[in-house]
Amino acid sequence: MSGNTFGTLFAVTNFGESHGPAIGCVIDGCPPGMALTEADIQGDLDRRRPGTSRHVTQRNEPDAVQILSGVYEGKTTGTPIALLIQNTDQRSKDYGQIAQQFRPGHADFSYWKKYGIRDPRGGGRSSARLTAPMVAAGAVAKKWLFEKYGTRFRGCMAQIGDIVIPFEAWDHVPNNPFFAPMVDVSQLEAYMDALRKAGDSCGARIRVTASNVPMGLGEPLFDKLDADIAWAMMGINAVKGVEIGAGFASVTQRGTTHGDSITPQGFVTNNAGGVLGGISTGQDLEVSIAIKPTSSIISPRQSIDVNNQPVEVVTKGRHDPCVGIRATPIAEAMLALVVMEHALRNRAQCGDVHAPDLPEHPSPQASFL
Amino acid sequence: MSGNTFGTLFAVTNFGESHGPAIGCVIDGCPPGMALTEADIQGDLDRRRPGTSRHVTQRNEPDAVQILSGVYEGKTTGTPIALLIQNTDQRSKDYGQIAQQFRPGHADFSYWKKYGIRDPRGGGRSSARLTAPMVAAGAVAKKWLFEKYGTRFRGCMAQIGDIVIPFEAWDHVPNNPFFAPMVDVSQLEAYMDALRKAGDSCGARIRVTASNVPMGLGEPLFDKLDADIAWAMMGINAVKGVEIGAGFASVTQRGTTHGDSITPQGFVTNNAGGVLGGISTGQDLEVSIAIKPTSSIISPRQSIDVNNQPVEVVTKGRHDPCVGIRATPIAEAMLALVVMEHALRNRAQCGDVHAPDLPEHPSPQASFL
Amino acid sequence: MSGNTFGTLFAVTNFGESHGPAIGCVIDGCPPGMALTEADIQGDLDRRRPGTSRHVTQRNEPDAVQILSGVYEGKTTGTPIALLIQNTDQRSKDYGQIAQQFRPGHADFSYWKKYGIRDPRGGGRSSARLTAPMVAAGAVAKKWLFEKYGTRFRGCMAQIGDIVIPFEAWDHVPNNPFFAPMVDVSQLEAYMDALRKAGDSCGARIRVTASNVPMGLGEPLFDKLDADIAWAMMGINAVKGVEIGAGFASVTQRGTTHGDSITPQGFVTNNAGGVLGGISTGQDLEVSIAIKPTSSIISPRQSIDVNNQPVEVVTKGRHDPCVGIRATPIAEAMLALVVMEHALRNRAQCGDVHAPDLPEHPSPQASFL
Amino acid sequence: MSGNTFGTLFAVTNFGESHGPAIGCVIDGCPPGMALTEADIQGDLDRRRPGTSRHVTQRNEPDAVQILSGVYEGKTTGTPIALLIQNTDQRSKDYGQIAQQFRPGHADFSYWKKYGIRDPRGGGRSSARLTAPMVAAGAVAKKWLFEKYGTRFRGCMAQIGDIVIPFEAWDHVPNNPFFAPMVDVSQLEAYMDALRKAGDSCGARIRVTASNVPMGLGEPLFDKLDADIAWAMMGINAVKGVEIGAGFASVTQRGTTHGDSITPQGFVTNNAGGVLGGISTGQDLEVSIAIKPTSSIISPRQSIDVNNQPVEVVTKGRHDPCVGIRATPIAEAMLALVVMEHALRNRAQCGDVHAPDLPEHPSPQASFL
Repeated sequence: MSGNTFGTLFAVTNFGESHGPAIGCVIDGCPPGMALTEADIQGDLDRRRPGTSRHVTQRNEPDAVQILSGVYEGKTTGTPIALLIQNTDQRSKDYGQIAQQFRPGHADFSYWKKYGIRDPRGGGRSSARLTAPMVAAGAVAKKWLFEKYGTRFRGCMAQIGDIVIPFEAWDHVPNNPFFAPMVDVSQLEAYMDALRKAGDSCGARIRVTASNVPMGLGEPLFDKLDADIAWAMMGINAVKGVEIGAGFASVTQRGTTHGDSITPQGFVTNNAGGVLGGISTGQDLEVSIAIKPTSSIISPRQSIDVNNQPVEVVTKGRHDPCVGIRATPIAEAMLALVVMEHALRNRAQCGDVHAPDLPEHPSPQASFL
Repeated sequence: MSGNTFGTLFAVTNFGESHGPAIGCVIDGCPPGMALTEADIQGDLDRRRPGTSRHVTQRNEPDAVQILSGVYEGKTTGTPIALLIQNTDQRSKDYGQIAQQFRPGHADFSYWKKYGIRDPRGGGRSSARLTAPMVAAGAVAKKWLFEKYGTRFRGCMAQIGDIVIPFEAWDHVPNNPFFAPMVDVSQLEAYMDALRKAGDSCGARIRVTASNVPMGLGEPLFDKLDADIAWAMMGINAVKGVEIGAGFASVTQRGTTHGDSITPQGFVTNNAGGVLGGISTGQDLEVSIAIKPTSSIISPRQSIDVNNQPVEVVTKGRHDPCVGIRATPIAEAMLALVVMEHALRNRAQCGDVHAPDLPEHPSPQASFL
Repeated sequence: MSGNTFGTLFAVTNFGESHGPAIGCVIDGCPPGMALTEADIQGDLDRRRPGTSRHVTQRNEPDAVQILSGVYEGKTTGTPIALLIQNTDQRSKDYGQIAQQFRPGHADFSYWKKYGIRDPRGGGRSSARLTAPMVAAGAVAKKWLFEKYGTRFRGCMAQIGDIVIPFEAWDHVPNNPFFAPMVDVSQLEAYMDALRKAGDSCGARIRVTASNVPMGLGEPLFDKLDADIAWAMMGINAVKGVEIGAGFASVTQRGTTHGDSITPQGFVTNNAGGVLGGISTGQDLEVSIAIKPTSSIISPRQSIDVNNQPVEVVTKGRHDPCVGIRATPIAEAMLALVVMEHALRNRAQCGDVHAPDLPEHPSPQASFL
Repeated sequence: MSGNTFGTLFAVTNFGESHGPAIGCVIDGCPPGMALTEADIQGDLDRRRPGTSRHVTQRNEPDAVQILSGVYEGKTTGTPIALLIQNTDQRSKDYGQIAQQFRPGHADFSYWKKYGIRDPRGGGRSSARLTAPMVAAGAVAKKWLFEKYGTRFRGCMAQIGDIVIPFEAWDHVPNNPFFAPMVDVSQLEAYMDALRKAGDSCGARIRVTASNVPMGLGEPLFDKLDADIAWAMMGINAVKGVEIGAGFASVTQRGTTHGDSITPQGFVTNNAGGVLGGISTGQDLEVSIAIKPTSSIISPRQSIDVNNQPVEVVTKGRHDPCVGIRATPIAEAMLALVVMEHALRNRAQCGDVHAPDLPEHPSPQASFL
């Protein structure tokens, strides 16, 4: 069935394969009248794009976005916004052998079993390259939410393999290739260099937040804000775990400490991560995700081929030794798309009336960090 | 917006409030011709219902389900199956004060801010009581999946507060009030008794699995099986974290250990938790969820009322000191509903052809346990 | 698949069978804070209910509606509104023979072929009785739209069999059993009496309108307002044709006459029927539908049974000789549900800003009448 | 809201404006493994494209389709199929004045009122040019349905302005520029020439059918096959009326004649148009639509501008004097898309079991023609 549309009111339909002629998306439901150019989108794409440091895939894609529709004289018209990104640096010959084999931990196996056919070039449809159109769509959502509510999305690396990264300041994030919120990343560089030499890969943990989120977003029982965030995050390539607020730490908390006290000036703590009963409280959204190590590694692995015969798989080609590194702008974009969807849903049913309450409830530092 | 329908092809629409005349759901899309009576559903409801031990809420509800439609002469007809559960043991006077106050950590605040009105009796719409219709709907899904594919759903308590519960055997789960997979639960009983005396509450961690899951379920990019599982689980009351397979442990794993090797006889490990690229592999689905401590506690908490005035909140009424205890059958039901939805989606696009492959790939013991 | 939910933002999920214990619906997405009681709904149900004259089925159902959820202290809370109507006057023995036979022109055949099973009692799920919950849901939509925008829905009989009914005035509609907008209905009574004596049935044409419709409702390309109206109307039992505005008369019109001229004071004519490019213009919505003659007639018909053997079918039981007679409140309700859905959709994307323009463009008498 | 996706399981998302860089669509949900090339699609696009005779717009567009994704080595992979059509012959300067005025009978007015902004070049989003991607998507649906069930779609002109066109044979349809099922179209040519000289436009009536339609398609109560057909047809630009089977003629029919008798060899007549109770019967689908006269005409019309000032509108540019002429392949495509959607829905819930019954019930000549 059609699982390639993200959202209902701000609906983003994604298409393309890693080594096809182009990838892209169609955004349907964007409010009309917002100024929008390619430049508004390109910034986030540049943060995500490959080839920017030695720690990520060396595939060199400019990922230049083109707006095909939905914008007239520099403003959104309310009609679908089609975004196109050409694929320019495919090296499909690298994948000849992979076409007949299943990499352990990779979608090769499951796509083949589901569809009976798959495009193996660069991972085809299962490639993380397909997150690029979502980053582009997320940039559109971010712009509208910022202009309308002042909502702002930020993400950073919280852990890479065994190394827990201390949070120093958001300002450091753009200054290193790891999206790490710290000044000195030499330890991370050494770690990644060693890993690459070993022909291995590692996991990562990403933190992503939103501030100035309007109250009242989320549609229980099922389309809860946190449920949709979990859906969006778990759907990112390689994600295996999602936490909201205190997350798994809440297992060992008591009710007397977990429940965030409220004063007339706002919440005292933020164990909830900005969501109660599936509805935003106006506090910062706090999300944490676990990303598994890349499955495409040069170390030999035991597997089978399409004829169920045993094979030893060695993945050449250009791959990220830690897919988590480029996941930060992706996670930000997905969070923005969820908030955007719910902002529109909320005003459908409840109107815009609750936004003015927001400043009364500033978000404290999350207590679980 | 309408967020009260779970699923698209096997669509369950939930209605009701904790202290209204009745709660229930409408299941739309159930395949025709399946034998179904109330007895097929009541079993799981009985596992979930309150009042069965001193460790859960003392509200005494029989939770007897009535089938209002969609079944003729004991068989499903393919038309909507409406299920009704009467509310019989409401004590709404317990909630008089709560109507004007916001319990810390509770949906009181966010419902009020979103809708400008809420039914405060027993938590109204935000009550965990509304999981009962989902357990009922899940029982219908479980029956169809078992008869069609032999799929089986099981859950257990993995941790309660500070106590990690060792997995001894599934057989023990029904023999104690905690859904613990162990023989001797005296430590748990003592822990809960002390907690109750202290007027406090604690969190929990639940594990839920599915075996004999057909390959090929899941619709990437967005309606991935694991993404939908995350959505379903995070949507359960009080859940703050979701893991698939190795989950957050994958952050510190290397690619050489995380990626599950494959042999002609099947997978060697199950770090993936039964899903690769968002599509089921035929291995057991392995899901773990974190449940926060109950917010309705008798210990006094700092909060505000609807007029933004400071108040001290003390919650009387009957509440679960650990909502995680009754969460096991709920999590099973939600997982069953996700698998059911994807089973129907998969045969829409791909037909039923891939089910026979299943027995070739038995699931090993999950490596991360 | 699940085809029993009408709408996305104002989603009405219908359940029940003609002779089951109860029928009903769940309304999801109703804005919070609207005063609502059973009395607000019962009026339209009474207009639709059977047994009110000798010209309709003699089944005697009070069709008393009960609100099960979503209303607290007389106001909607924004949570699902479940409505229940008990079935009280079933005579299922009348249908013993029909269970094995297919009435010509009836859904007996197609339900059997699709599902392999059907509830034959009173037509089961295919009975027009299932329009009652939609009339109830429509009453909720009507109330909100009237209070918010002053929108008003009206319908009348325009033709019954061979008799074209002149439009005299809306005021006459409630004063006769045919919903005819004329004073003297003696000709219609004689016509129907003769038809009933002949054991035959006839078709009808219904006109339904909405006034004070906000501009800007409708979501092209596909969820156009007129497209959704056509969908809603064609989905009513026995409807075989739908027209918007000039409808089929537009085939022989020229562009110079069809296109409604506009002046600063409003439109001059209303061939468009209130919709241009799939979006409401603020003019009256004008819809016309064709309803086929009842298929359940006492005159013998040639058919087959479930074993593909030839049979002569004679339908006893209690049936409407012209199902069109009771179709007027149904068509009004369906139109109201479509407008409600689009009112919410429009404010999701575009806000409420265009409503004030409305009074500038009053709707003239439709030119094609 | 997002109204630009057609279908749920075979979901076609349309984008583009008449004079933007490109138009196109994304097909999501196509079953994998079907052979597909651009040539399979181009044929229907060529039937629809402008500039092929003096009776249609002289805009000269090759409408060459490019497949951007979803096909690997000539076969569908089950992932989204993106189709792109470049716009090459825009003459946007023709529309300078129209940007500030509302053509009577045109979507200019309603788009402006809804969105507060519109792309006026060539009608922007409201242009019938946007039906091209649907014709392309319909070709994909047609191919799958033909290969799977032998289903075949055909359409023809039934009336143009005042001239009712007798049905002689399907074979004649491709041999004249009107899609008329007759040999000698000289009368039609003279009619259209006179109309063009008069600077006016006319309406049309199109008939579209499907044969070898599997039984059991359609999901009552609301997603009935005929309801969805009505929705799809009314959504085509300029359509004002839709009939299924006997349509409005059923108003004056009696039950004894309308209900199609059944014999062991099949139905005797086809007043139902292939649908009973919203579910296909295996008979031919018979649909008729009314298309209004083109609103873009050179004859001066009374209207207003965006400042609500009176203006006289004269539409230059290149337009179809009868948009109905090119509507035949469009209506076929929309019918194919509806049938495709329901074919997938049906096998989700009911499997493929009922297809073999089909040949037992051949469809007779429709009785109402």
